[in-house]
Formats: sequence, C-alpha cells, structure tokens
Amino acid sequence: MRQQVQQGGPSSDSCSSTSDCFPLSRRSSAECGSETSAAAEKHEVRATNTPADLSKMSSIIVFYLLYLLCLCLGLACVVCVCVWSDQWRGGFAWDGSILEFNWHPVLMVTGLVVVYGVGAVVYRIPLTWGQNKLPWKLLHAALMLIALILSIVGLCAVFDYHNVNKISNVYSLHSWIGITAAAVFALQWVCGAAGFLLPWSPTTLRKLLKPVHVWLGGIILLLSIAACISGINEKLFFALKGNTTETKYSNLPPEAVLGNSLGVLIVAFGLVVLKILSNHEWQRPDSRPEGLAYTPLLQDDNE
Amino acid sequence: MRQQVQQGGPSSDSCSSTSDCFPLSRRSSAECGSETSAAAEKHEVRATNTPADLSKMSSIIVFYLLYLLCLCLGLACVVCVCVWSDQWRGGFAWDGSILEFNWHPVLMVTGLVVVYGVGAVVYRIPLTWGQNKLPWKLLHAALMLIALILSIVGLCAVFDYHNVNKISNVYSLHSWIGITAAAVFALQWVCGAAGFLLPWSPTTLRKLLKPVHVWLGGIILLLSIAACISGINEKLFFALKGNTTETKYSNLPPEAVLGNSLGVLIVAFGLVVLKILSNHEWQRPDSRPEGLAYTPLLQDDNE
Repeated sequence: MRQQVQQGGPSSDSCSSTSDCFPLSRRSSAECGSETSAAAEKHEVRATNTPADLSKMSSIIVFYLLYLLCLCLGLACVVCVCVWSDQWRGGFAWDGSILEFNWHPVLMVTGLVVVYGVGAVVYRIPLTWGQNKLPWKLLHAALMLIALILSIVGLCAVFDYHNVNKISNVYSLHSWIGITAAAVFALQWVCGAAGFLLPWSPTTLRKLLKPVHVWLGGIILLLSIAACISGINEKLFFALKGNTTETKYSNLPPEAVLGNSLGVLIVAFGLVVLKILSNHEWQRPDSRPEGLAYTPLLQDDNE
Repeated sequence: MRQQVQQGGPSSDSCSSTSDCFPLSRRSSAECGSETSAAAEKHEVRATNTPADLSKMSSIIVFYLLYLLCLCLGLACVVCVCVWSDQWRGGFAWDGSILEFNWHPVLMVTGLVVVYGVGAVVYRIPLTWGQNKLPWKLLHAALMLIALILSIVGLCAVFDYHNVNKISNVYSLHSWIGITAAAVFALQWVCGAAGFLLPWSPTTLRKLLKPVHVWLGGIILLLSIAACISGINEKLFFALKGNTTETKYSNLPPEAVLGNSLGVLIVAFGLVVLKILSNHEWQRPDSRPEGLAYTPLLQDDNE
C-alpha cells in the first residue's frame, strides 16, 4: 500500500521535478511516508519562504473556501427544495397525485444539480492529488451514478403523474432542456464508465475522451441549471395563481420568496462548481508515466 | 500605420520567439510587409511541414468553424424571436399594450444574448492577433454598449407594459435572474470602460481586472441564457393556454415549436460562445512589452 501511494503521488524525487504541480500533495506524500523527514522539512521551509509557494498556498486556500461554499450552497438547495415540497406543496406520495409530482423538483435538484456538481469537483480536491487515483475515480463514478438514478426516478415521478392525469409529456421548453440534460448525462455516464473504468479501453481512447468528458460535464450542468430555473418559475406560476396575498405570485408571498431563493441558490451553486472546474490550477496533475496516467478499474492502479 | 502593425503584431524576429502563440498572425504580418519574403517563405515551409504547425492550423480551422456556427446560430435566434413576436404575437408598438411587451423578448435575446455573445468573442479571432489591439478594443466596447442599450430598452418595454397594466414588476424568478444579468452587465461595462479604455487607469489595476472581467463576462452570459429559457417557457404558458389545437401549449402547435426551438437555439449559441471563450489556445496573445500590454484609449496604441 505504501508503494501504491508513492507511485500514485509524487515522491520526494518527483516533487522536485514537478514542484509547480503539487502544492499540497507534498504534505500528503509526507504523511504517507513517501518522503524522508529531511526532504519534507526542506519542502516545509520552501513552502513558507518562496513567493511561488505562498501564491500556490493562497490558491489552495481559495479552492477550499470555494469548495466549502459549494457544499453549503448544495446543502441549502436540497433543504430549500425539500421544505418547499414538504411544507408548502403538501408532501410526498407515489400515487399519481400532485404529491407524486413533488418528488420531481426534489430529485432533479438533488440529483442533476447538487450530487452531480459535488461529484464533478471530486478530482479537484488538492488533498487527493498525492493519493492513489482509483478510489477517487470510483467515488466520482459512484456519485454520478447516484445523481443519475435520482434524476431518472425524478423523471419517472413527473411522467407517471402526467400519465395518470392525462397530461402530455415533454412539450414545454423546460422539459426539452431538462430531458436533454438527463439524456446527455446518461450517455456521459455510460461512455465514462466504458472509457475510464473498464480494462480493455485503450489509453489513446482515454486521452481523446477526457477533454470531451470534461466539456460535456460542464454542458450538462448548464442545461440542468437552465431546466431548474425554468421549472421552478413555471411551477410557481402554476401554484400561485390565486387572488389572495398568500396565493398570488406577483404579491411575493413567502412560498414565492422561497422558490425564487431556491433558483438563486441553484445558480450560485452552479457558478461555484463551474468556477472550480474552469480553474486549471485546480486540475489534478497527471504525474505518472504516460501509459499509467489512466488506470482501468480492473487493474491494480499502481502495478 | 505600417509601423503600428509591426509593433502590434509579431515581427519576423518576434515570430521566432513566440512561434507557439501566433499561428495566423504570421500571415497578417507578412501581408502588412513586416516580414521579408525569405522569412515569410521560411514560415510557409514550416507551416506546411511541422506537426506542431499543422496542429495549430487545425485548431484555427476549428475556431473559424465554431465562429461561423456562432454567427449562424446568433442570426437564427434573432430571426426566430422577431418572427415569433411579429407573426404570432401581433407585432410591435410602444403604447402600453401587449404589442409593447413584444419588444422585450426581441431586444433581450438580440442584446443580452446575441450581440453580447458576438462582442465577447471579438478578441478570439486569430486574424486580429497580428493587428493593433485598439480598434478591436473599441469594437468590443461598442458591441457591448449596443448590447447594453438594447437590453435596457428591452427592460423599459416590459416595465412600461407592466406599469400601464397595473402588473407588479420583478417578482418572478425569471425577472430576478434577468435583472441580475442586466445589472451585472451594466456594472461590467462601466468597470470595463473605466479600467481598460481610460488613460489614467494603471497597468497593475488592468492586470487584476482582466481575469475578473473575463469571468464575469461568462457569468453574465449564463444568467442571460437562464433568464431567456425561463422567460420563453413562461411566455408560451401564458400565450398558449387555450383549448384548441392551435392555442394549447401541450399540443405543441407551430408557435410552441417555434418558441421551444428559439430556446434550443439560444442554448446552442451560448454553448458555442462559452466553448470559444474557454479554449486557451484561442486567447489573444500579449506579445508586447509588459508595460504596453494594455493600451489606454487616449494614448496611441503603438507609441
């Protein structure tokens, strides 16, 4: 295991040649015993003394602040959409009634936005850079699978509700954008699993696939956000069309403020995730030899 | 003028040292007489022979294909929204009626999405890299000003329509997102003009401002797209709530297909613009000496 960590992360030798790439992995490597204490001490001195290291350290601090913000915003989105559906819209059921529809916003926001966004930035966490990539690859795939399953169940909820109540499916712009996001996400997961996890996928294919995978990942999040905003907006117009202060959207009753705030939180969460994904300084560096840069699931990552 | 072009773009000397940065600017420089014919011939031979140059050339070709796609999608968005408002929604007026509202989608899509997007990618056009930056800076600022004015008039249309008809303003999630996009855009334009065009703005401030300016530019486009999708979705639900085949949204009459297609075109346009903006290979290189990298409006760019 120690050997695995040494190969997965930069050793004391590799640190010296890739010092621009691994600002925090040094600490991880040292913690895992892959550095001598003298080498670790040398790095410690450099980290506190050179402007370049201070700049890297501040970049890492900004990352963790953004990551914390991302987690807080994601949690706030889930709490908001649950409270909205449970407290203002009557709760949940799976009986073809409007209570079955209530699963739709909860599962789409939780799956296609929050779990998806958190899963997308797993590789960006600097603490993981010095470690074996395989567990993080599996975590990324698992989070994305959870996100996909939640999204599919969320779609089933609205399709079932529509079918029971003789309402057409997939006619609104919201549904066109949403269904496209879910379909591209399903395709992305299958291609990602086949391309990055299965052992018979060639390295050249993985190299070609990676930028497409990253780019499609961003597109899916953009589509999800656009679908959520239009969906929440539509739902609030449907639900708040009464004439009293509490039931008219244009009077901005508490439910309208909650729904609008959910939309704002989703946009803020998406922007933070996209900011993390777009910063090249926070990309996991590939320190390993060319042929080992991508590790199939069924091969030992460091053999 | 010739001297300006020589300084603004890479000369034959600078080409050799910055060969990774200026794939097409060589041609521009040669056309402007800044290269000797021998040097140009040497570059021509290199351009057709080395894999690196072939790779750069293919990158440039991909750029122009995407740029063409961007222009076509932008034109399609404008045509679609004009046809929708003119043919299906009764045309235009400025009298407080629903015909005044019709200016809102046309001006917001044209200004806050299409002209904005086209203005955002001006600096990415490789043909301009070898030329004096000042005219392109002015074009960028002018396009953004046009986009801002169109957006403000588009907002005035909906505010005026609401006020005349005693409808509340800025209560829906669509309006929250849209008004935020417009406000950030106005702030961005003022800060951009003050920071990059006025002569008393220090170079250090410009350097700090540039990444923020670029990042905010992307955020504005994302917000605009989310606002447009939710707005079109909302408008189609309001406009198509009849019971006949032609007037019910869920029956997908031609107007619904047109409106939904407009939404899809806007998303596609936005994704192409963001793709162009996110590719570092297509960023305009700063070839000039450090202090001259940013040129105030009221100073000669190459003096």
